Amino acid sequence: MHSTLSPRELRAAIRTGEFARHTSGQAPGFVHCNIVILPADCALSFLRFCQLNPKPCPLIAIGEAGKPELPNLGEIDIRTDLPSYRIFRHGELVEELPDITALWRNDLVSFALGCSFSFEEALLAGGLEVRNATEGVNVPMYRTNLDCASSGPFSGKMVVSMRPFQAVDAVRAIQICTRFPSVHGAPIHLGDPTQIGIKDLAQPDFGDAVTIEETEIPLFWACGVTPQVALEAARLPFAITHSPGCMLVTDIRNSQLAVL
Amino acid sequence: MHSTLSPRELRAAIRTGEFARHTSGQAPGFVHCNIVILPADCALSFLRFCQLNPKPCPLIAIGEAGKPELPNLGEIDIRTDLPSYRIFRHGELVEELPDITALWRNDLVSFALGCSFSFEEALLAGGLEVRNATEGVNVPMYRTNLDCASSGPFSGKMVVSMRPFQAVDAVRAIQICTRFPSVHGAPIHLGDPTQIGIKDLAQPDFGDAVTIEETEIPLFWACGVTPQVALEAARLPFAITHSPGCMLVTDIRNSQLAVL
Repeated sequence: MHSTLSPRELRAAIRTGEFARHTSGQAPGFVHCNIVILPADCALSFLRFCQLNPKPCPLIAIGEAGKPELPNLGEIDIRTDLPSYRIFRHGELVEELPDITALWRNDLVSFALGCSFSFEEALLAGGLEVRNATEGVNVPMYRTNLDCASSGPFSGKMVVSMRPFQAVDAVRAIQICTRFPSVHGAPIHLGDPTQIGIKDLAQPDFGDAVTIEETEIPLFWACGVTPQVALEAARLPFAITHSPGCMLVTDIRNSQLAVL
Repeated sequence: MHSTLSPRELRAAIRTGEFARHTSGQAPGFVHCNIVILPADCALSFLRFCQLNPKPCPLIAIGEAGKPELPNLGEIDIRTDLPSYRIFRHGELVEELPDITALWRNDLVSFALGCSFSFEEALLAGGLEVRNATEGVNVPMYRTNLDCASSGPFSGKMVVSMRPFQAVDAVRAIQICTRFPSVHGAPIHLGDPTQIGIKDLAQPDFGDAVTIEETEIPLFWACGVTPQVALEAARLPFAITHSPGCMLVTDIRNSQLAVL
C-alpha cells in the first residue's frame, strides 16, 4: 500500500510513526536524499568539503541555521520526516532515534545530498539490469585508495558503489548517469578494481556482494557513504545523519535532476 | 601552409591538382566525409543499409541522382573535390584517379558519411590523448564478428577502430563521443576484444597497431571502413569511393554536428 503514497503522504506517515522502515522503493520517481545535520561552527567546512568532492557529496539542498525546513525540497520538517536518525557524539554512534525534535538546536544546519536510488531508477527505466536490484540486496560498496580533497576536520578516502554490466550496457549506463550529476553522475572508474585499491570485489566494506559474470565489467560510482565516513572520522562533538536506507523523500522528481 | 586554408580554398587547391594528399589535419574544425558513389539502381539499398547500421554508416548527406553537388555541405563538385578516388568494377579496385569527371553518369548518387576525424578532434579538444595521433600512425582497425543488418546486396561484419584509455579517460571519451552520433557516436564495445571476435590487438586488419599500456582499456568505435567492406563484397558492376584518408572536406564545422 505504501508504494502508492505521494512523497508528502509518505512523510506524513513517517512523522506519525506509521511508516518506520527503509524508504527504498517508496514514492517511485521522487528524489531520496542522504541527510547530514551539523552545528553551524563546522557547517562551512562541511559545505566546502562537499563542493570540493562533488561526485561523492552532491549537494541538493542546505537549510538555514536553526531552521528545520528545506523549502526547496517540499514541505519538510527535518526533525520528524526521516524514518530513523543516527546520533553521533565525538564520532561515536550513540543512538538511533525516529525523531530528533528533542535534540534540535538553533545552530543546526541540514544538508541534503543526492543518492544512488535516483540513478538506479534511471538505469532501470533505460532497460538496464541493476544487479543489486535483481538479487534483492544492498549495493556492494568499497573503500578505495582515492583521497578526497580535505576541508577543516573533514577528509578521508572515497567510498564507491559497484554495479557490473556487459560492455554495451556499460556504455549506456555511463550515458544515462552523465545526465544526473547531482546524484553522483557518471562512474569514476571501470574495470580493474585494484587500480583504485579494491582487493576483492567479493568482500565489500559495506552492503552485499553481487554476482559478476566473467564477461562483465565492474563500474564504480562515487558513493554517499563517503561523507558519512569523513564525518565519523572528524569526531565532531555532535552530528546527526539518516540511518542507512532511511532517506528523506522529497517532492522533487528524479527527472527534474537531469541536466538535459 | 595548406593547414591554414579554409575548406573552400582547400577544395579549390584539390580541384586544380595543387593539393593531392591525405586530408588529415587539413581545415581543422571542419567535417571530413567518407564518400560512396553508386548507380541509382542500388542507391536505395545502400541508403537502407546505412539507416539500418547508423553507427558504422552515419549518413551526413545524399546527392540527387546525376547531380555532382552536395549543397548542404558547401559549394561542392563531387567529381573533382577529393584528392583521390577509387574506382571499383564488379567488386575489384581497378583504378585510382584524381578526378572522376570522365566517369560521371546521370544515374550516379553520392553519399557522404561521417568520419572519425571529427570525434578525434573533440577528444583532443577535451584534453584526452588519442594514441594513434600521439604515435603518428593510422588508427588500428579490426574486423569483428558483429553482423551488420543487411539490405539488398549489402551485408557484412562490422569493422571497428580502437583507441586505448585509462578508465577515467574512457568514461570521458564516452561522454564526449555521445555528443556526436553522426560521426560514429559512442563506442560500441570496451574491454575484452575477444567478445567481439578480435583475436589480437597487435594485428589490426587495417591501419597500424598502437601501444596499449597494461592499465588501459581498449575502446572500440564503429568504423567507416564497414560500408567500404560491404560495398566491395556486394561486387556491384560499378562504384566509386574516396581513397583511404583522402576525404571530402566540407564547410560544416565539427561543432555543428554536436547534438547538445
